[in-house]
Amino acid sequence: MDLETARTIVAAARAHGQEAGLKPLTVVVLDPGGHVVAAEREDGASIGRFEIGFGKAYGALALGQGSRATMARAEQQAYFVGAAGAAIGGALVPVPGGVLVQDGDRLVGAVGITGDTSDHDEAAAVAGIEAAGLTARVD
Amino acid sequence: MDLETARTIVAAARAHGQEAGLKPLTVVVLDPGGHVVAAEREDGASIGRFEIGFGKAYGALALGQGSRATMARAEQQAYFVGAAGAAIGGALVPVPGGVLVQDGDRLVGAVGITGDTSDHDEAAAVAGIEAAGLTARVD
Amino acid sequence: MDLETARTIVAAARAHGQEAGLKPLTVVVLDPGGHVVAAEREDGASIGRFEIGFGKAYGALALGQGSRATMARAEQQAYFVGAAGAAIGGALVPVPGGVLVQDGDRLVGAVGITGDTSDHDEAAAVAGIEAAGLTARVD
Amino acid sequence: MDLETARTIVAAARAHGQEAGLKPLTVVVLDPGGHVVAAEREDGASIGRFEIGFGKAYGALALGQGSRATMARAEQQAYFVGAAGAAIGGALVPVPGGVLVQDGDRLVGAVGITGDTSDHDEAAAVAGIEAAGLTARVD
Repeated sequence: MDLETARTIVAAARAHGQEAGLKPLTVVVLDPGGHVVAAEREDGASIGRFEIGFGKAYGALALGQGSRATMARAEQQAYFVGAAGAAIGGALVPVPGGVLVQDGDRLVGAVGITGDTSDHDEAAAVAGIEAAGLTARVD
Repeated sequence: MDLETARTIVAAARAHGQEAGLKPLTVVVLDPGGHVVAAEREDGASIGRFEIGFGKAYGALALGQGSRATMARAEQQAYFVGAAGAAIGGALVPVPGGVLVQDGDRLVGAVGITGDTSDHDEAAAVAGIEAAGLTARVD
Repeated sequence: MDLETARTIVAAARAHGQEAGLKPLTVVVLDPGGHVVAAEREDGASIGRFEIGFGKAYGALALGQGSRATMARAEQQAYFVGAAGAAIGGALVPVPGGVLVQDGDRLVGAVGITGDTSDHDEAAAVAGIEAAGLTARVD
Repeated sequence: MDLETARTIVAAARAHGQEAGLKPLTVVVLDPGGHVVAAEREDGASIGRFEIGFGKAYGALALGQGSRATMARAEQQAYFVGAAGAAIGGALVPVPGGVLVQDGDRLVGAVGITGDTSDHDEAAAVAGIEAAGLTARVD
């Protein structure tokens, strides 16, 4: 996940949000090790949004699945998802919007978006990833 | 959120509690960045009350909505609210009593109150905020 | 440490600061268990001041001595003070301004003040404690 | 600190780094409450750089002075700076490169840069801030 790719993802996700009339988004892009490459929080977003976006993306990398899949697990076993989040230090937010980024078969990072509904957040992440010519894994 | 405004909110919230015969209240007033401006814990309140009041107010700022709205989300998706709280460091208490403070359209801080029922805590927060000539957002 | 006493300490410490021309102060008053009773952060104080004032007062209670004595220990054994702070969760700031409050022989709480020089912070704490008819222990 | 201003700061700081031949930089821009507005980590930067840049900027806001001033304090009282950092949760990196951003007299945020020498990091932060028409406070 080089910085230019991350910047492309951020810009395209935000453009998606503006075209779709979404609330202010926060976009966080992580490398495969879970470390921040780029982040932007739009005006009007509340103060916890970086951490929530980070938690969506980091949790996806931590469990190796998009946060939509982790939400499905939480619906069945909330105690597991809560405990897994605690085990990894808190950064696991199990609702859609945390999307793995693949280049073919290779995992190259993750995107976390928060601000509108979780479904809309995820759609913005997918738009951003695809604009960079990469593949999004939402679950 | 200057200190005199915060002190006015604390005093008026406590006066509301005493007139209404509420149990001992703890009142925490934060600036828009979530940092303490003023706090008072009434005699007889238990030892965890500062942290609970702080968590009501901080959680409201983190998510951009009064803690009553976050309770509604927790009723539907407890795992999300638990995870969001962990992601932001623990300070998110999702029951009424965490109220955003606005000066017109501008967010100027938050108030967290705990000690009586959540509904009564919230009423005291609203009374305090309105006594300062500001607008309360409970959800 | 009842709330009225804590309020008296806060008000007198702040009055001392204003008379002495000190920078904006943050005053935190804790009960003997280390829990917040009252706090005020004056306009213009930076955002970390509540935590630093809390750390001065909590550290004083944790080690049973005013923070001036802990500074003396830090000058000799910085590794001990750093480790003790980590052991208790981080809230131990070893410079003057964390003052134990006694009522005769009985420990009734602690005051932490930050904002000006450490010596001036401590003087404000002592002024506040004495205005409440109590005894200050700075080391 | 709106996002467009933050993006201007990031772009100008990075341009400064490239013109000056600096190592890969990480640039973090915070609002006055210490919350991320924008961040970029250049290719080749090591994995801890976001946290270090964040710590330079957050520490500047927490203490109300640029991180160069905190380094001077650390040279005299390392135990204080270590303890203050622990008290605020760890995010305090006391070397140059954490710069307060002012719009006239008003504090509007902070920038943290890391990657090259601390002096060069700071110069990049100042260049970014001035490119946005704002004033940099390095100590």
